[in-house]
Amino acid sequence: MIVGILGGTGKEGAALALRLAKAGYAIVIGSRDKARAKEKAAELAQASGGNVSGATNADAAARGEIVIVTVPFDGHRQLLEELQPSLSWKTVIDTVVPLDFKAAHTYAPPSEGSAAEEARAALGEGSRVVAALHQIAAHELAKLDHTIEADGFFCGDDAGAKEQTATLIRAIGVRPVDAGGLKNASILEAMTPLLIEINKRHKVKSSGIRITGI
Amino acid sequence: MIVGILGGTGKEGAALALRLAKAGYAIVIGSRDKARAKEKAAELAQASGGNVSGATNADAAARGEIVIVTVPFDGHRQLLEELQPSLSWKTVIDTVVPLDFKAAHTYAPPSEGSAAEEARAALGEGSRVVAALHQIAAHELAKLDHTIEADGFFCGDDAGAKEQTATLIRAIGVRPVDAGGLKNASILEAMTPLLIEINKRHKVKSSGIRITGI
Repeated sequence: MIVGILGGTGKEGAALALRLAKAGYAIVIGSRDKARAKEKAAELAQASGGNVSGATNADAAARGEIVIVTVPFDGHRQLLEELQPSLSWKTVIDTVVPLDFKAAHTYAPPSEGSAAEEARAALGEGSRVVAALHQIAAHELAKLDHTIEADGFFCGDDAGAKEQTATLIRAIGVRPVDAGGLKNASILEAMTPLLIEINKRHKVKSSGIRITGI
Repeated sequence: MIVGILGGTGKEGAALALRLAKAGYAIVIGSRDKARAKEKAAELAQASGGNVSGATNADAAARGEIVIVTVPFDGHRQLLEELQPSLSWKTVIDTVVPLDFKAAHTYAPPSEGSAAEEARAALGEGSRVVAALHQIAAHELAKLDHTIEADGFFCGDDAGAKEQTATLIRAIGVRPVDAGGLKNASILEAMTPLLIEINKRHKVKSSGIRITGI
């Protein structure tokens, strides 16, 4: 199974690539800068002992059977609109959180209600967007032997796409938690600024969220 | 310390009263129906071995040094406006979650952004509202020997009111987690429909949220 990662040279994208490659997936990390993607891919292939290649975002979108979106929110809609022909029918896992950095990391969703619903609007009817993995810290993923206590929430409206997402979440060593339909994406996204606040108040580096009683 | 509980004959209010009375607080549970409040109070006093009395909501608001709001969202604003003279200067802990029951328990906040911010608007400038305890299940609180794994999130803009809230949360056997300013109340409130969804998807009765890494 080939997984494309848009923005795969960023911290979160690279950390996901590392764990997924280690778990046996073939990874294509995409970037605006192809040379940088190739360089980062070589580094990740060595660290994981797996199969990681670097490409443009367009190539990562075209080659991935599942595509994970880890780009900054600025430009999120435009990128997905551009890549719509490659992505409209694939499982697209959107990890993006729209934050207002000028307003103390306040959650600042687009008019669709959440980044994931913006992605669905950009990709069109019948697209298979799942919102997931917003709170799994890159620096925890990046340590391959580190046990991640936080849960991996996901929500979406396509049962098959959700199942694929749950499988990927398990593969990176995280417990998947089904949070219902894509209408709940804003809640999942908004938990990120909540954790930023909790980190600050409790003076820790990476708080996470775990569901009790399941 | 006297704690007033508005809507204290309801499940959540009564369960909080039980644990707080057991912990040594003097509790006044308020209700629209004074006779019902007295009856429930007698039951809770016996079960907790503590001090619980029943009153109207107005009396509970007047007598409580700290007041917890556990009424249904319908009528939340009106009740607080009515009781404003008693409540405007006290620590008011708002546990209310505005849900659209016709739309699968979707989060449906008022124009202020959250129930807690609506409470602040109703009580006026200088009021000391803390949003808290939205996700602590009544049936877990009601079993006095049950260990609660879920965290008790709270947020607000008044440091003293937050400290009092954290102390009450500890007293009911729950770990307090500071989630920042009152602007975060909508995130805390919206986690309730998320848990309802998770209960449904994971076929459990009372999922909760625990923060890892703190």
